[in-house]
Amino acid sequence: MKVINIGLQQFADSVRAQGVDVVDVDFRPSPYDAPRLTRTRAGIDIEAANAEAVRRIASGKATLVGLGVARDVIPGMRDKMLLHAGPPITYDRMCGPVRGAVIGACMYEGWAKTSNEAMQLAASGAITFEPCHHHHAVGPMAGIISPSMPVWMIDNTNFGNRAFCTLNEGLGKVLRFGAFAPEVIAKLKWMETVLYPTLDKAVRSMDGGIDIKNLIAQALYMGDECHNRNKAGTSLFLRAIGPALARTCGDGETLARVIAFIDSNDHFFLNLSMPAAKALTEPAEGIEGSTIVTTMARNGTDFGIRIAGLPGQWFVAPAGRVNGLYFPGFTEADANLDMGDSTITETAGFGGMAMAGAPAIVKFVGGVPQDAIDATLEMYEICASEHDTFLIPALNFRGAPLGIDVRRVVETGISPRLNTGIAHKDPGIGQIGAGLLRAPIECFAQAFEAMRD
Amino acid sequence: MKVINIGLQQFADSVRAQGVDVVDVDFRPSPYDAPRLTRTRAGIDIEAANAEAVRRIASGKATLVGLGVARDVIPGMRDKMLLHAGPPITYDRMCGPVRGAVIGACMYEGWAKTSNEAMQLAASGAITFEPCHHHHAVGPMAGIISPSMPVWMIDNTNFGNRAFCTLNEGLGKVLRFGAFAPEVIAKLKWMETVLYPTLDKAVRSMDGGIDIKNLIAQALYMGDECHNRNKAGTSLFLRAIGPALARTCGDGETLARVIAFIDSNDHFFLNLSMPAAKALTEPAEGIEGSTIVTTMARNGTDFGIRIAGLPGQWFVAPAGRVNGLYFPGFTEADANLDMGDSTITETAGFGGMAMAGAPAIVKFVGGVPQDAIDATLEMYEICASEHDTFLIPALNFRGAPLGIDVRRVVETGISPRLNTGIAHKDPGIGQIGAGLLRAPIECFAQAFEAMRD
Repeated sequence: MKVINIGLQQFADSVRAQGVDVVDVDFRPSPYDAPRLTRTRAGIDIEAANAEAVRRIASGKATLVGLGVARDVIPGMRDKMLLHAGPPITYDRMCGPVRGAVIGACMYEGWAKTSNEAMQLAASGAITFEPCHHHHAVGPMAGIISPSMPVWMIDNTNFGNRAFCTLNEGLGKVLRFGAFAPEVIAKLKWMETVLYPTLDKAVRSMDGGIDIKNLIAQALYMGDECHNRNKAGTSLFLRAIGPALARTCGDGETLARVIAFIDSNDHFFLNLSMPAAKALTEPAEGIEGSTIVTTMARNGTDFGIRIAGLPGQWFVAPAGRVNGLYFPGFTEADANLDMGDSTITETAGFGGMAMAGAPAIVKFVGGVPQDAIDATLEMYEICASEHDTFLIPALNFRGAPLGIDVRRVVETGISPRLNTGIAHKDPGIGQIGAGLLRAPIECFAQAFEAMRD
Repeated sequence: MKVINIGLQQFADSVRAQGVDVVDVDFRPSPYDAPRLTRTRAGIDIEAANAEAVRRIASGKATLVGLGVARDVIPGMRDKMLLHAGPPITYDRMCGPVRGAVIGACMYEGWAKTSNEAMQLAASGAITFEPCHHHHAVGPMAGIISPSMPVWMIDNTNFGNRAFCTLNEGLGKVLRFGAFAPEVIAKLKWMETVLYPTLDKAVRSMDGGIDIKNLIAQALYMGDECHNRNKAGTSLFLRAIGPALARTCGDGETLARVIAFIDSNDHFFLNLSMPAAKALTEPAEGIEGSTIVTTMARNGTDFGIRIAGLPGQWFVAPAGRVNGLYFPGFTEADANLDMGDSTITETAGFGGMAMAGAPAIVKFVGGVPQDAIDATLEMYEICASEHDTFLIPALNFRGAPLGIDVRRVVETGISPRLNTGIAHKDPGIGQIGAGLLRAPIECFAQAFEAMRD
């Protein structure tokens, strides 16, 4: 006799105690009593709509065509406006690290001389806060984009849309983790005045720009999942832009500093993989009847998702607590809640979806390599498709899980797995670790209910 | 009832046909009736000697300190001398691609104007042929090093030895695969006059050089095994040397071409991982009583090994036939036998030993990712130790198998697994594929017998 147990662990134990072979299935019923949803109230075939959504996401291009200054290139960006990560939020509800980044941005822009002045300004209502996602942009962690910041421009030439993201500052004491010390601002100024024009000149000199989707696909063969491990992506990007940089820079010392800046930060490529994901997912927005997730984003207070069939609506729940590895001197008690737009990578079929290809990431986010394999295998349960370009060698070149279907999330009770950096909960400090968590399932349940209506 | 079958497949099948669970163990007895050898005739404890050998290999450094021209820097190199891969061989026994590379080297050096002149010269006895391995050098495939060729210099500062290797020319029609057309020679001249001085200036400007062992360790986290997959290593090398190149080159267009040359060839790092392996393994040579392999090398005709306890002696058998994937237009019938010094990587505890960390390599050498895992797991059977620096994330960060023990090879009948490029058997053509094979076990049996005497 053999027994398959899908209930509580104790059942299996008591059968096993009687000498019977037991296969223990890690099964939990969904907390939602979700009916099977195949057509919308208007009669649209959801499967077909979802197939179109994942087809669009998978078939897009993501080409770096140049850089620009936010105020000049991001649609709707204007003076005294700050973009932030995640769903909409007012200043009074912002978490510490987002406030820290707001303070830093006000000083960087010259709107305030001190952090006190900046806080007063931010609280006064004189600054407009809007989500990056409302402006075809994404930002890691706090995700603050201010008008003077240079941004990458990634074109999805197959669909004619363009996405934006700031340049990655490095790890530790950086604006996106809520730090705003003078050296943080000084680095941002260097990025604006030296790094940006040097990179922009190089990219624009390259016929056809740089194919970031292709670099992501290559990096997934090289141990990255391109969310919290971007070492290969960063390396491949430097290779791709290297000859053009050498030809266009004109000054050896400047070039050396630019290359050293990129080389010093294995996460440099994150701010390219994120807008690539944004450029790839946007064309799926507005496909009537589709239950595929097109946005997952957090502002450090709330977690929000949007789905293809209801593109204007955010479905929001409290941001989660990260199960992480902490830098020396910090503990969970110092940690802010989950934060940033970087979950656009999971939405586009890599990041946490592709962890099976990035066993070494567990040294950064915790766990053992088998967990990384298991994470990807589980995600197939809630995704509508498998990517045809983002492949995972360790899974015999199987495509990464693509297209989170809110129906499957509520049916199975399995919520998307995320990996992420951790900011200190107080403004002004910075990154203190990285870790793992799941998206709050309530967002998916709300989206599911909205589709039923 | 359960049955474990370690015999012929048929036994398992007939038991299974009777409805009994069978675990089939892939076991073949060794072809050698090898006695257990624990002490040499002189009474030396072989285990202790082997422990010292693997300690030395694992604990070495491998630092790129600069480049030089072979005639100036390789000990014993002189005019009209050509170094070649593998064990010693006379011109009359050389295979097609090694002859092709000899022809090319004679024309490159200006010793001959035509391939006919070169062949006459080579056959005349006017040229001295010696193995790279007799000069602290290694060469991939044909492995020809001529006096004017620039070479990398890798120092093992922990033991005071230095190793040498030429610079990688790229794939396809290249000297090391036996091609000698005018464009092959022209590229070698560009490497001598432009690439070499540019790289040398950059490396020498770097305090402490470049830690190649560290780059190998990082690349093993990034899907390379640093023998036939060097994409991460090449990328990391460019990152490491990039700022120094920018500071020292002085000319943007030259710099752009140098970076583009490196970027165009994912195997560029092979010619750094090989001399690193050579620098790491040499200190184990001469440990009395040690049965650890310190050299595995092939000249396209013969396969030879040397062991730590008998450093002067080659144990030689016919080179093997590679089981490979071929470039379009070529088949096994075109293939030369196994060739090159690159098996120094397996000797030093990476390459084929670390295939489990490089699942994507199967697209180049054949097989499926599980084969890559199995290859590494099997190699633990014949190795004395596990590397403490070269780790494999996919095996939960287990150290790569280190230190092939000829005793274990003959006891188990398991011969080292190799992966390799494939040259056309005729001179003048070049690379036609890549693949997998095992080292000929006869070499290990000879070494074992020599240790018993």
